[in-house]
This record gives sequence, structure tokens and C-alpha cells, in this order.
Amino acid sequence: MSKQKINVNQNILNMEYAVRGPIPQRAAKLKEAGKEIIFCNIGNPQALGQAPITYYREVISLLEEPSKISRERELKSLFEENSYSNLRDEDFIAEDLLALSEKILAKTGKGLGAYTESKGFRFVREAIANFINKRDGFNTTNGLEANPDHIFLTDGASDGAKRVLNLLIAKKTDGVMIPIPQYPLYSASIKAFGGNQVNYYPDEDRDWALDRAALESAYNTATEQGTDVKVIVVINPGNPTGAILDSASIHEVVAFAKAHQLAIIADEVYQENVYGGEFISFAKALENDKDVLLFSLHSISKGFYGECGHRGGYLEVRNVPQVEGAEMDFVDLLLKQASVSLCANTVGQIITYLMVSPPNGENAALEQFHNEKEKVLGDLYEKASMVRAAFAQMEGVEVFGKTGAMYLFPRLNKLPAGTTDFDYCMALLEETGLCTVNGSGFGQAEGTHHLRIAFLPSKEELEDVLPKWVAFHNRYVNG
Amino acid sequence: MSKQKINVNQNILNMEYAVRGPIPQRAAKLKEAGKEIIFCNIGNPQALGQAPITYYREVISLLEEPSKISRERELKSLFEENSYSNLRDEDFIAEDLLALSEKILAKTGKGLGAYTESKGFRFVREAIANFINKRDGFNTTNGLEANPDHIFLTDGASDGAKRVLNLLIAKKTDGVMIPIPQYPLYSASIKAFGGNQVNYYPDEDRDWALDRAALESAYNTATEQGTDVKVIVVINPGNPTGAILDSASIHEVVAFAKAHQLAIIADEVYQENVYGGEFISFAKALENDKDVLLFSLHSISKGFYGECGHRGGYLEVRNVPQVEGAEMDFVDLLLKQASVSLCANTVGQIITYLMVSPPNGENAALEQFHNEKEKVLGDLYEKASMVRAAFAQMEGVEVFGKTGAMYLFPRLNKLPAGTTDFDYCMALLEETGLCTVNGSGFGQAEGTHHLRIAFLPSKEELEDVLPKWVAFHNRYVNG
Repeated sequence: MSKQKINVNQNILNMEYAVRGPIPQRAAKLKEAGKEIIFCNIGNPQALGQAPITYYREVISLLEEPSKISRERELKSLFEENSYSNLRDEDFIAEDLLALSEKILAKTGKGLGAYTESKGFRFVREAIANFINKRDGFNTTNGLEANPDHIFLTDGASDGAKRVLNLLIAKKTDGVMIPIPQYPLYSASIKAFGGNQVNYYPDEDRDWALDRAALESAYNTATEQGTDVKVIVVINPGNPTGAILDSASIHEVVAFAKAHQLAIIADEVYQENVYGGEFISFAKALENDKDVLLFSLHSISKGFYGECGHRGGYLEVRNVPQVEGAEMDFVDLLLKQASVSLCANTVGQIITYLMVSPPNGENAALEQFHNEKEKVLGDLYEKASMVRAAFAQMEGVEVFGKTGAMYLFPRLNKLPAGTTDFDYCMALLEETGLCTVNGSGFGQAEGTHHLRIAFLPSKEELEDVLPKWVAFHNRYVNG
Repeated sequence: MSKQKINVNQNILNMEYAVRGPIPQRAAKLKEAGKEIIFCNIGNPQALGQAPITYYREVISLLEEPSKISRERELKSLFEENSYSNLRDEDFIAEDLLALSEKILAKTGKGLGAYTESKGFRFVREAIANFINKRDGFNTTNGLEANPDHIFLTDGASDGAKRVLNLLIAKKTDGVMIPIPQYPLYSASIKAFGGNQVNYYPDEDRDWALDRAALESAYNTATEQGTDVKVIVVINPGNPTGAILDSASIHEVVAFAKAHQLAIIADEVYQENVYGGEFISFAKALENDKDVLLFSLHSISKGFYGECGHRGGYLEVRNVPQVEGAEMDFVDLLLKQASVSLCANTVGQIITYLMVSPPNGENAALEQFHNEKEKVLGDLYEKASMVRAAFAQMEGVEVFGKTGAMYLFPRLNKLPAGTTDFDYCMALLEETGLCTVNGSGFGQAEGTHHLRIAFLPSKEELEDVLPKWVAFHNRYVNG
């Protein structure tokens, strides 16, 4: 067999994934060879030094080894009784965190080591429903409350997106509309599941806003070519653009989806990463509209928590339709699909619970939590501003949209004849050690060039590398 | 949309998954209504009271909140200096576990919160390679050492099986040979990926042994019908049979796969669950045979650890072929596929590391680890024996094979005319609260009836329920 060739699934063979593509692979090689590399190719905050949020980690640490809860109380009371001067209250885990951990442990039933329900722990799904209700003002009066039975815990949001696309793509001619540029999870998954990618183009010069004409044009062209468009993907805040969608754009998408009976996949993993702009969820934008099937995705990997390695997230479904040719609805089908994977990992589930249940007024962890949160989000905004300031010194570089997510996606208006953004990013990497991803890895309007940078390195690293980038840029584009 | 019907992927619509099918669903309903249920439908040890292994959990707990490592040392030295009588050394985490956690933390680079390489942490893959080498006697002299670059960390073994099947099934006529009975992950995945299920029949009366004639017959029938058989799945120890495959059977499969140029998927997740029999890996059976492509799967969910909820495992590939029509080999393709999911969850990765790196002689955790391990495995064997003893009191019940895995799969030779094993299991559930899975959920030779029971409840629960089952059985079969 090893001497022979094997015939494989062509859909996966043809799939591309630039975020871990040739430039990051070259960066890894350079690093092995001893070069200092700053990995800005991926939104992986803790890899670049962002500290985890203590609140999440204290609780998970106790849940993994619950005997430590009672021991902590015993140690603490021993110290208090004997009034050690060397130790202070802060050296012990706060009682409310111990009590919270006990409460969560009881809700899990058997801790973190057992398979959960296929959809995930019910108490986590209930907490997610409460979070959505609070975020979007849903209640029994307006009848828009989230349904815990329509929520699935997933191993990161990528898992949720793939599950939905795998179910919706029923035949080769089924189409999925995705924005260009897009996060390559979508193009890769559409290819893997054998569907048709239908591109639509947000208007870069209008801060990546969506207008109806652009959506209709993409839809019509695809339909004329025999594609049966079934769903539109929207990423807000954007990836790779980092731009925050305005209210008008979001409502355009809803009206468009309704007119053509399309489902919407709303990738809202960066909903906490809005610096100055406002996040509006698609669930909120739908309001009483019962005609549009909505899948919304969230994740523990982004926001101010950045718990990428723990692989947690959720998928909420609204306006669940019946399945054609079967005695079940779409949630039943999602459940059947989920059951084959047994369940999402329990630590990711619990961090999702904590993400939607931040410390409240009764909790001593409150102040530390808010300090850590403000620090991370403040730093991110400051770092984005530093990168923007560097762009202002680079010839022919423009960047559009209100800053959101963890990315900037500048347009490179001036490149030497015959060179591409791939060449530019590779040269930038070789010269400065800065690893970005070329715009063509995400797709871009023909004739334009971009790159995506995750603004995650430390300020010190940025202060060091940005002047080098400016110098590189102004030399390269005139070279 | 909610009033309409949606057209979906028929492959997933047609998929079945009995382990979480109608009988377990009925059991969940009964439990909600207040009935005592013993869930023996699934290998989920910690849900049935099995305690986690302390060694794994102490380390994970420290890695989630690393500040606790230095604090533990400080507390310990304070106590020692002040000679508290209330506390003993055992109340503190042993220094070697603290040191081990520090060592692992350093190897991760940035802890558990960052995405890892797509294949998983390299140091974990190296430890897995060492584990395989040690288990199977591979070394530089015989040239059979495992290659860490050919190992992928996965979210449980199911994830690994699905990845491989998704790549191997390239067209509708591609066939996958699976044993009957089988674990429904395989039938469900083959259906989901649009391939052909080709059944082969281990010989129940010969303790589920495999013989060449049965394999050839299944292969020939499929080939004559236009199926292009590409791979054979073997589950050892068996699921649902619980039987341990003998050496002759394993070597038959290798010779058969070689003769027909098939790949082998060896599902070896129960390799630690052998009670009296011997586990022989397919990697070992292959030896110097470079002609057979082998995928072997392992998991943290089974064995004596039972860390199902943490979703960890690995996939090892041997004798990697080139991919037809591309400048890459099969491992490159697996890597491309893995990169779209970013990485397996880090906690599952670290527990996999600990699974393949048990405490050694220098480690104070050694004794506790071995005690816990022996207790779990000893209990499992005892509980299997209790269930077998009950079978001996049931009319027309036979069970074959050396006890392995976590299951017994008795044949019900006597059922009332017109009833099936599904009816039997449902009636057993309603009467005794014991939730098993009907043999037809796994597939079985025509005209036979079985059920699968996971022998995981406590001895007390078994002592209570087994006599009820015997009474139920002897009444039911004569009813």
C-alpha cells in the first residue's frame, strides 16, 4: 500500500484553508530554524500572551478535582484560627467561587468525566437561553424567549457551522451564499460537503456594509446557473474584515432571506469584540418574523476570554422547520447527527456556561473579573489603534469599517507590477518575522489586494515590529 | 420557514444510531417521570459511579490554574514549619505531581487556552509513539517505531474514525467492510459519507473468531454487486460483543487486507479492558508488512479511566500511501482536513498524554494510581461475572467469547413467537428499569436475537436488578 496511490474524497482534496496555509507553514519552518516569529495569522490570543480569565479557570480547576473544594475551606479556617501573618484572604479561593463550583458540580450530576446529553448539559443550555433573552430583550411578553431545546453545545463554533452546512447541503446544486472576503471555514466546508459556493460582496468603501442589490445580484447569477441557493452566511463582527455590521445591513439580510426563503447562518463569535460600534444579533433583528430559519453561532474562543484550546461554543436555532419527507423537525435531525459524536467536551461546555453567566453582584470574584475583562478589551482596542497608526504611514494602505473582532484587513492599493498580496505577505514574513495571511486566502474583489492581521501580540512586540513593517512596506511597494 | 418543510441531506436523514435510539429515549422519559433507571445502554462509566483516576485529575486541575502549583508548595512548607497536627502530608498534592504539572505546562508553551498544532501537541504525539513502541516492542533495531508525525490527536476515537471514513469514501460505490454486530458509529458514518456498508460475520459460536472464508465471501458478494471495497473495520476487543479477538483472527484480517489491497481501521479503544484474554494490536500483527495501510484508534473514554466527557483520543497511521492525483501523501491530507477544525480540545489531549504516560517508579502517585486502576478493572471483571451468572439462570441465553471491553452480548435463543429483541429490551426496561440495547441496533445474523449490556452499574445495583431480570426473562420467554 505504501508504494501505491490511494483514491480519496476529491471534495476534501480540493479544499483550501489559508489560515493554516503556506504562509503560516513557512513561518513555522522559520521559527524551527531560530527566527523570531510573531504569529498574527490566527485569532489565538493566549498563544500571544493573553492571560486566561481567572474566574473560568478557578472553577474548572475545582470541577476537575472536587476534593479541593472542601480542602480549601478546611485550610482557610485553619489559617484563620491560627492567624498566620504570612497569608491573606486573597491567598485562598473566595467562598463564593467554591460555592459556585459546588453548585455547578451538582448540576452536572456526575462531574466532567461522563458523556452528557447529545445536545449538551441541560443547565448550560438553559443558561445560554437566559443570556440570549437578556442580551436581546426577549421575554414571555414578546414571546421571543430562546428555547433550551433548540440550543446545541459544540466543540467551538466551527463544529456548529459544519454541522448545519452538512445537513443543509443535500445535493451538488445546493448553494451557500458567503461574503467575500470570508473566513475559510465556510469555503472549505462547502467544498467538503459537495455544495456550491455563491459569493456576495459587502461594500468595502462603505465600511463593508451590505446592500440589497449586491445580495440580489449574487443570488440571481447563481440561480440562473442552476444553483439552488438555500442559505446565506453572515459573519458579524466580520472575519477577516473585523468590521461591525450596521443595523441597516442586518435588516437587509433578513428581508432578503425572507424574500427567497433562505436560512441564515449568523457567525457571531466576535460579539464581545466591538470597540466603539454596536453589536446587533440576528435573533434580535428577526424579532417576530417567524418565516426565517436562523442558526446563530457563538464560541468561547474569542471575546475577552480567548479559550481557543478548550473548544467550546453553541448553536441556537430559531423558527425550526419540518424536514421534507420525514416525521421530524430540523432540531430532531440536528440531534440525530449530534448523537453520533456523543457530546461536546464537558470543559468547553462549562466554560460556555461561565461565559454566559458572568459573576453577579453577590460574587466576590466580580471586581477581578471586570478588571481582567476591561484590561483585555482595552488592550485589544489600543493595539488595533497602534496597527492603524502604522497603516497611516504606509503608502497606499486603506482600512475600512468600525473596529471589531480581532482583525484588521487593510487594502494594499499599491503593489509592484506582477506581485500579489501573497508575495507581499511572504516577503513581510521573511523580513520582519510578522506572520499575516494574504487577502486572497479569504477571497477578495477582483483586482484588489489585502492582508489580514490579528492585532493580538503584546504592545511591546508591536512597538518593535510596526516600524519595521512601515519601512518594509514603503520600500517594497516602490521596489 | 417554520410552516414550510426543508429539504436536507438524505444520507444523514437515513442514518441510525441505536445506542441513543428509541430504548434509551424511552428510559430518559421514564426517569423524568420518577422511575429508577439503570443506564446500561452505553459505555459511560463515570455516569454510573466509577470514580475518576486521581492522577489525571490532579494534573489537569493544576494545569487549568497554574498559580496553584507554587501556592501548594508555599502552603505545604508553612504547615511543615508550624507542625500542624490536624494536617498530614497526604492532605497536600505530592511534589512529584506538582513537578510533573510544571513540566507539562512548559511543554504546552502557553497552557491549555491556545489552539495547538492541528495534529495536536507534538510532545503528546511523541509520548504516544513511545507508548506504542513499548506496548508492541518496536525499536530502531526492527525499524517499526511509531512516527509522531503520523499521529493525530482527536476528540474521542469516534472523531478519528469519522475523519478516516470521510477521506476514504470517495464515491457512492466505495465499500467499507464492518463486522456484524458492529458499533453503530460505523454504519452511521458510512451512511453519512455516502458509502456502501459491506457486512462480514464473525463466528459467534467460535467466540466471535474471524475466518478467511467469511471475509472472502463478504468481499466477493460486494464486489460482484459493483462495490469497490476499500477498507475493513475491526473492533478489538469487540463492541458490542465484548469478545477479545485471538491471534489467528487478527492475522487472517491482515492477510486478507493485503490480498485485496484494503486499508484496515483497527478500533482498539478497549485495549486495556481484557479480563483473562490477551490484547494484540494490529500494528504488532502487521510487523514488517509495508503493504497494508493501517489506521488504529485509541481513546481516553474506556479502559480503567473512563474519561468520556473529556473527549480525547488518537489516530495512528502506518504505511502511508501517496494520494492519487495529488502531490501529497495520506497524512498530508489528514492534516489538511484536521486544520479546518483547528485542533482537538487541549484537556482531552493532556489526558491522552497521561494515559500513555502512567506514573513511573520515581513517582509517589504510583501506588494510588495502581490501586485505583486495579480496583476499577477488578470491579469490572467481577460485575461481568455477576451478569454472566445471571445469564446461566435464564432459559435459552448463551454468551460467547472471552470477556473484554465493557459489554456482554448474550444470544436470546428463546423468544415468544412474533416478538423481537427490541420488544424484549423495551419490556425489560419497563419492568425492571434496566436500559440495554437490542441486538438489532448493532446488526446480527439473520434469525438471531441479542442484547448488549454494559456491565458498569455498581455491584449493589446489579445484586438488586439481576434477580428481577432473571424472573422477568423466564416469565417473558414462556409468555
